Amino acid sequence: MDAIDVIRAKRDGGELSPEQIDWAVDAYTRGVIAEEQMSALAMAILLNGMNRAEVARWTEAMIRSGERMDWSALDRSTTDKHSTGGVGDKITLPLAPVVAACGAAVPQLSGRGLGHTGGTLDKLESIPGWRASLSPEEMLGVLRDAGAVICAAGSGLAPADRKLYALRDVTGTVESIPLIASSIMSKKIAEGTGALVLDVKVGSGAFMKTVENARELAETMVGIGTDHGLRTVALLTAMDRPLGRAVGNAVEVAESVEVLAGGGPDDVVELTVRLAREMLAAAGLDGGKDPADALRDGSAMDVWRRMISAQGGDPDAELPVAAETHEITAPATGVLTRLDAYGVGVAAWRLGAGRARKEDPVSFGAGIICHAKPGDKVTAGQPLLTLHADDASRFERALESLEGAYDIDEAGTLDQLPLIIDRIA
Amino acid sequence: MDAIDVIRAKRDGGELSPEQIDWAVDAYTRGVIAEEQMSALAMAILLNGMNRAEVARWTEAMIRSGERMDWSALDRSTTDKHSTGGVGDKITLPLAPVVAACGAAVPQLSGRGLGHTGGTLDKLESIPGWRASLSPEEMLGVLRDAGAVICAAGSGLAPADRKLYALRDVTGTVESIPLIASSIMSKKIAEGTGALVLDVKVGSGAFMKTVENARELAETMVGIGTDHGLRTVALLTAMDRPLGRAVGNAVEVAESVEVLAGGGPDDVVELTVRLAREMLAAAGLDGGKDPADALRDGSAMDVWRRMISAQGGDPDAELPVAAETHEITAPATGVLTRLDAYGVGVAAWRLGAGRARKEDPVSFGAGIICHAKPGDKVTAGQPLLTLHADDASRFERALESLEGAYDIDEAGTLDQLPLIIDRIA
Repeated sequence: MDAIDVIRAKRDGGELSPEQIDWAVDAYTRGVIAEEQMSALAMAILLNGMNRAEVARWTEAMIRSGERMDWSALDRSTTDKHSTGGVGDKITLPLAPVVAACGAAVPQLSGRGLGHTGGTLDKLESIPGWRASLSPEEMLGVLRDAGAVICAAGSGLAPADRKLYALRDVTGTVESIPLIASSIMSKKIAEGTGALVLDVKVGSGAFMKTVENARELAETMVGIGTDHGLRTVALLTAMDRPLGRAVGNAVEVAESVEVLAGGGPDDVVELTVRLAREMLAAAGLDGGKDPADALRDGSAMDVWRRMISAQGGDPDAELPVAAETHEITAPATGVLTRLDAYGVGVAAWRLGAGRARKEDPVSFGAGIICHAKPGDKVTAGQPLLTLHADDASRFERALESLEGAYDIDEAGTLDQLPLIIDRIA
Repeated sequence: MDAIDVIRAKRDGGELSPEQIDWAVDAYTRGVIAEEQMSALAMAILLNGMNRAEVARWTEAMIRSGERMDWSALDRSTTDKHSTGGVGDKITLPLAPVVAACGAAVPQLSGRGLGHTGGTLDKLESIPGWRASLSPEEMLGVLRDAGAVICAAGSGLAPADRKLYALRDVTGTVESIPLIASSIMSKKIAEGTGALVLDVKVGSGAFMKTVENARELAETMVGIGTDHGLRTVALLTAMDRPLGRAVGNAVEVAESVEVLAGGGPDDVVELTVRLAREMLAAAGLDGGKDPADALRDGSAMDVWRRMISAQGGDPDAELPVAAETHEITAPATGVLTRLDAYGVGVAAWRLGAGRARKEDPVSFGAGIICHAKPGDKVTAGQPLLTLHADDASRFERALESLEGAYDIDEAGTLDQLPLIIDRIA
């Protein structure tokens, strides 16, 4: 087999054979296919696509490049969720405990943020003492103890994907639905979960800007999961405006704790409950305790406290607070008809909540609190957004990204996506 | 400027701006754009194309990455030819002396063979003592002395192209007309010739298999030359069968010397004379001595001898001969209706005349003599092809590539391209 033959086959619009895919992924992982050859192949895949059989095989080859976790020692069914990323998307934080409180085990491997979308691990690391890196044995221990675990993926999991993702990131080859789908699904299948719910975000703050693209990605991922015997469901959900009121790290943990305490913003609660029901149903555990009850009766909060403690965190510790704040007030009286997720996400990133490069640290206290959500009535001069940063010099560029990011209108016509747009099974 | 933005622009079907092209070529030459980024860009260019303005700018940027030669110290007009490569294509060897004998100066920078097509420098190096590497001062000296010089391009000439060509070779991104055209033209323009005739080969033994593709490449190159103020003409010529009777290195030198002595195969003579007339016309020297006369009266041979001697070669030395021969005889009586250039080229390559990798040596004596050409009558049992190799173990694989490479037919219907298919100016 030869790298150039494989590249040419895809370049010329052909279908890669199972043997070509197995060889290419393995040879790349071993360094036999050079980075510049794989980037040419990735560009050819991006422009000429891969069909369902090719994507399934590519995913399988990436899974086989590393270890596959096994939770058969647990006496509970496993179920997990993956979000394609958004602004204010802290759903994993209340969701994993809720689902565990309803009887499933949630072995979630999460990531860090890059660019304007936040990362679950960055948020949890704002809790003093909390550790993201666990050995497989520690993961099993936390799962047995708390029912849910959220931690970083070890380097042995789908190493081909790790290497390929880093390459795609610098070669303009990220935006390929077959490559995105196989990247996500290879990690989730290697993670060993028995059921999976995909939260595919749609809108300015999401990776997929249109419902059509999001649907294609969701269908591709559900196809891969199904082809691998993983019960997989996808929801398309709104990311044209931020989710909840808090965007950042510690501020999102605080909002998640509100939700676990039975309060919190309506959209965060609604999406948490809906995703929890889907996760339980996918795990064959529907008909048991309802997620909304687990939020009301404190059982989800109990799981949260055990889970955080088991990973070294203090659930009662005070969360980091940024030294500086800047308030944006409503320029007029009327209805907030639009609050752009992308603008708010970039502002939070510029305030320090996100990172520009993988090796950068994040500010735990930085972020934004949205005092009004689209549909809310506002009065001229009332607080609209509060910006938090460790350093006041960050406000200027954050404010630039908020210019034109919101509309206040007397007529009050709201033009936004429904929170849950569609379900794909 | 950012590599990913440039890649994305071309990936998404956009036109690269002059600033993006200048930056990308310069940044790649300096190592600021990594190999894996340029290979993704090359694949995007291959699949999405470049328009005439982009190709002109890309070529200009590659020329500016290095030095540009200057022959204004000469008292003659300069003119050159470039062939896209074929099987048995030794035309440069008689052509440069013929054109010099008719009054122009020919400063030709040539290449080595890779794959089944031969390289002019490999052929000339079969002459004992001949040196391919000359300094610019030595080139000028040979030009003054002989009127023609054929040598290797120095590393200072279009270094961006040198780096990009090596990358394209291993990433399946060779077959892009804009990239082929800009690669050829950047070297020819940097070479400093005042006029240029392109011999674009068409057929199984050529890089361009169809007249349509060859025409597109020719038009692109003529466009680039014209945009850079270089008088450029292209001929589309046949490469469905080998050119001449000899395919290899020393055997092609010997055939070229026959042509310079006023003999040689008709097709080699016809193409040499036609290209020489075009080169002289492009240099504004038509109406003077005719190339056919320069072959007949020995003046072209005089230039050849001076040129070879000036580069250390002995024009009277015996040429290397391969130790082993194998004869293929005609299996039937009739007309040779087809002799496939690709099959013969691959066979010569496997006999040792070509190289699989840049660093491999070639065998000077290896090659093939075609005793019959398409259209010739043959008798069963008469010699058809003689294979030459240093080692008899090479015959087996060479014979494999000749299976099905020729047809002998009683009816004698010939289906081949005209030697000169079209002219593009």
